[in-house]
Amino acid sequence: MIILGVDPGTIITGFGVVEALNGKLRVIEYNVVKNKNSKSMPIRLRQIYAALCDVIDRHHPDEFAIETAFYGKNAQSALKIGHARGVSILAAVNHEIPTTEYSPREVKKAVTGNGAASKQQVEFMVKALLKLREAPKFYDASDALAVAICHFHKAKMKRNGSAAAKTWKAFAQSHPERIVTRT
Amino acid sequence: MIILGVDPGTIITGFGVVEALNGKLRVIEYNVVKNKNSKSMPIRLRQIYAALCDVIDRHHPDEFAIETAFYGKNAQSALKIGHARGVSILAAVNHEIPTTEYSPREVKKAVTGNGAASKQQVEFMVKALLKLREAPKFYDASDALAVAICHFHKAKMKRNGSAAAKTWKAFAQSHPERIVTRT
Repeated sequence: MIILGVDPGTIITGFGVVEALNGKLRVIEYNVVKNKNSKSMPIRLRQIYAALCDVIDRHHPDEFAIETAFYGKNAQSALKIGHARGVSILAAVNHEIPTTEYSPREVKKAVTGNGAASKQQVEFMVKALLKLREAPKFYDASDALAVAICHFHKAKMKRNGSAAAKTWKAFAQSHPERIVTRT
Repeated sequence: MIILGVDPGTIITGFGVVEALNGKLRVIEYNVVKNKNSKSMPIRLRQIYAALCDVIDRHHPDEFAIETAFYGKNAQSALKIGHARGVSILAAVNHEIPTTEYSPREVKKAVTGNGAASKQQVEFMVKALLKLREAPKFYDASDALAVAICHFHKAKMKRNGSAAAKTWKAFAQSHPERIVTRT
């Protein structure tokens, strides 16, 4: 199963593609789509949509995962994020790829075990879980990989259903890929 | 010049296509794209984008006009409108159609002469200016036609430039299409 995770924004949209094979994850590609502040909204949206369509055409993901938007109380920011999210989701649905949303808390918890983890902690765990040589240059890319990792775990839990581990020991045994040894 | 006006929403998106010929406007098509509340956001976005692409393919508009979003203070509504606006603008830009935004106040003023006009007043003037037999069934469609009419007037004013009328008499003479006689 190939998963595309996206962290959308009108200036920087992060994306990450991972493959789940035999219960293990490997990274295929991650990067950001950058838009200049000077570009108009229509041009930015076209760029985000086209870039994500290219990623989809390159890797043919089976699933698409995205964070529910964090917009605080600022309607203006929410509107902007809405534009970027809309065209990102459209790229997936126009390629018949099922989409799933996760809250920022779910993503952080799935990746670090802590729903209130910092961006640095998420980045550290993304690097460790995917065995990356270097951390992604942009948090938007590590956040996109994080939501893809989150989707992998949630899908796995769903498949396992009632067989879900009840103890830490059983959990550790059934999720060897989530054990990170500090070097 | 053919103008496509759009009033986007995740449940109802209004659109209106008008043609400006020899300084006069005629309506080509107007309608709404309806989405059921039960449909997921990705499905709704796909439907809006596909429907607007169809309209564009049918009439090949030269210009695209849309209202700047009115979102009040509600970030959740702004996010939703952002999704619908994003894919609407994308439909235009993916067809190389220049897009212009107008504030709700500008649209109301251009159509009724009053920036604080009600939806009913806008609908009345849209029906009169475009010589429609009946008012559009949905305000979303009359709002879409209103933003297209607004774009026509603004584009005309831009072309006329410094020759803009300074008196009501001169204005009325240079805008015969804006004189509505109550019958």
